[in-house]
Amino acid sequence: MSVRTPDPTPEPDLPGDSNPGWLSDMELEQIRRRLPLLYVEAVPVRVDGVGVVTEVGVLLRATALGEMTRTLVSGRVMYGETIRDALFRHLEKDLGPMAFPLLPASPVPFQVAEYFPLPGLSPYSDDRQHAVSLAYVVPVTGTCEPRQDALEITWMTPEEASSDAVAAEMEGGRGTLLRAALASVGRLR
Amino acid sequence: MSVRTPDPTPEPDLPGDSNPGWLSDMELEQIRRRLPLLYVEAVPVRVDGVGVVTEVGVLLRATALGEMTRTLVSGRVMYGETIRDALFRHLEKDLGPMAFPLLPASPVPFQVAEYFPLPGLSPYSDDRQHAVSLAYVVPVTGTCEPRQDALEITWMTPEEASSDAVAAEMEGGRGTLLRAALASVGRLR
Amino acid sequence: MSVRTPDPTPEPDLPGDSNPGWLSDMELEQIRRRLPLLYVEAVPVRVDGVGVVTEVGVLLRATALGEMTRTLVSGRVMYGETIRDALFRHLEKDLGPMAFPLLPASPVPFQVAEYFPLPGLSPYSDDRQHAVSLAYVVPVTGTCEPRQDALEITWMTPEEASSDAVAAEMEGGRGTLLRAALASVGRLR
Amino acid sequence: MSVRTPDPTPEPDLPGDSNPGWLSDMELEQIRRRLPLLYVEAVPVRVDGVGVVTEVGVLLRATALGEMTRTLVSGRVMYGETIRDALFRHLEKDLGPMAFPLLPASPVPFQVAEYFPLPGLSPYSDDRQHAVSLAYVVPVTGTCEPRQDALEITWMTPEEASSDAVAAEMEGGRGTLLRAALASVGRLR
Repeated sequence: MSVRTPDPTPEPDLPGDSNPGWLSDMELEQIRRRLPLLYVEAVPVRVDGVGVVTEVGVLLRATALGEMTRTLVSGRVMYGETIRDALFRHLEKDLGPMAFPLLPASPVPFQVAEYFPLPGLSPYSDDRQHAVSLAYVVPVTGTCEPRQDALEITWMTPEEASSDAVAAEMEGGRGTLLRAALASVGRLR
Repeated sequence: MSVRTPDPTPEPDLPGDSNPGWLSDMELEQIRRRLPLLYVEAVPVRVDGVGVVTEVGVLLRATALGEMTRTLVSGRVMYGETIRDALFRHLEKDLGPMAFPLLPASPVPFQVAEYFPLPGLSPYSDDRQHAVSLAYVVPVTGTCEPRQDALEITWMTPEEASSDAVAAEMEGGRGTLLRAALASVGRLR
Repeated sequence: MSVRTPDPTPEPDLPGDSNPGWLSDMELEQIRRRLPLLYVEAVPVRVDGVGVVTEVGVLLRATALGEMTRTLVSGRVMYGETIRDALFRHLEKDLGPMAFPLLPASPVPFQVAEYFPLPGLSPYSDDRQHAVSLAYVVPVTGTCEPRQDALEITWMTPEEASSDAVAAEMEGGRGTLLRAALASVGRLR
Repeated sequence: MSVRTPDPTPEPDLPGDSNPGWLSDMELEQIRRRLPLLYVEAVPVRVDGVGVVTEVGVLLRATALGEMTRTLVSGRVMYGETIRDALFRHLEKDLGPMAFPLLPASPVPFQVAEYFPLPGLSPYSDDRQHAVSLAYVVPVTGTCEPRQDALEITWMTPEEASSDAVAAEMEGGRGTLLRAALASVGRLR
């Protein structure tokens, strides 16, 4: 299975596409073998009235080879972009404009996931690049309608989300990240 | 100035007031010198669309002697009560029923404040008791109307809230806790 | 199986045993049904040169009924005692004086575990009491020789420590706490 | 004052200098205006027997213009390098080989500092680049002897380290980061 950190291709539909800060595909390809790239990731959740996580959202995506794989909201931080803005942009990209995510007041992630091209150095791998991802749990209050290449968002109970079956379907080792997310909110058994 | 961890007197308007788990004032008074009591505290904040804290809510309160003092949302965890339920109950008690607080998904506090009867052991003191408080930053989305003994909630910018002037007015060393709250959300200069 | 938050019986070998702050067994018994008691817990670990957790220490203990059960370093915070002093005291009590624990610079726990007498309210239960425990991962650098009622400390790999088999042997739901500890240090798969 | 994220020039004395993963100065210069670069930073501290931070180490450095400025241990994460290895490498580079740092068991930073070329977007700025820095508090147990361009390490009490005077001398807004570090360990007043 071709595992990869999901990344919009071509580069994102942002104002300022001609900004020299944005990279052509070829430039990005070269840099990917020279520098660790900075990513943000989000685990979308639904919470009850006192903040307990009741459901976890996992994206279903088709790879270039037509295989189905599960993943999290994820994407690159652009030059000049704050982490919060990147997080919001990727949440909107992957969950649609009506998800109404509640970004955390604290910029400290629940986990830092290090993706290496070769597996084994960490629980996470990405055959395209060395990426370092700041991962956040993000409650969403609206309606999620995946756009772009995400086919569907599946809402699971914390128990389902932490199962071995789900972990096996998640790309790049993100089953581990999902469990760490659940542990951070006290919902991993 | 008589500094104290604010505590409803008499014991709270909860279902089960006759529950043997609740304590008479005299019993509580005795226990206060025998055991550390568990508290929760909340720093109410307003956030913008990407989660940046823009305002901080500080309570103004009159002491038994008629002096004005500033404090945070604070109160005891009862027997059998979860931390989340205690946090919600005290937020409602101090901010009213229309504050609509967004309790954190994670139960891990940004700081643990240890209040001792004698000053000096920690930044925090409470002449009545040894209290250990789990402190959270809590975004509120509604209208705050302090009830009970809190006279008013004052909304401040992060800069004002971390000033020496505000710290000097806060009871029991909570200026330190307020600054730690701001630091945890990246808003302390 | 009788699960319980381990607690030295009788009250601890501290200076000041006649201190009115300490409680008789009968007093403690009464208070246990009236107030949440404050605990600290520690997951002892061994780390490599760059801080990666390589081994996790789990205590083996015999219950009053002679059953074997696994647990973590755990104990009550006394009146007037700081959390750090309590943590150090219980580490020494359970691991011996030559363990040389490195207490965390930050007082913020990786998790707050809420033990209720009745199971179901949280992952943690303790048939004796409502206890709220601040849990820390603590690297130890010396030799661990359990004292008191702990029979043995077993060092496990992170993989073993997070297994279902170990979780099933741990008292009061502490398998969940152990997994949360591993997740917090990036060592839960 | 020319403020900048300290970075060894030329690229570091690592095994594999001819590795295509390393960048020439010119390449790095170009990338710096195209992508956020990933950094690690460390606040070296000394702790007492129960983990309380007693002293904070701040580096004194001369800028290219001969001005004196204060800073923290800081540097880039290289392609293929783990965050822990980068942290250890920069600690050794800035504090010498006998500092014996105790890297944290958890990879989660106490703060994420975002440095932008233009001031105002965040508390942190770096006129050369957009850098995102994962910041850690790191106890050191040995002798610190700054190498390279750091002239000296100054040990301060937490009170001194959080003073306005020290903050004014720190480059790129790192006085804010230092205060956040102290707050995270409960040592900011």
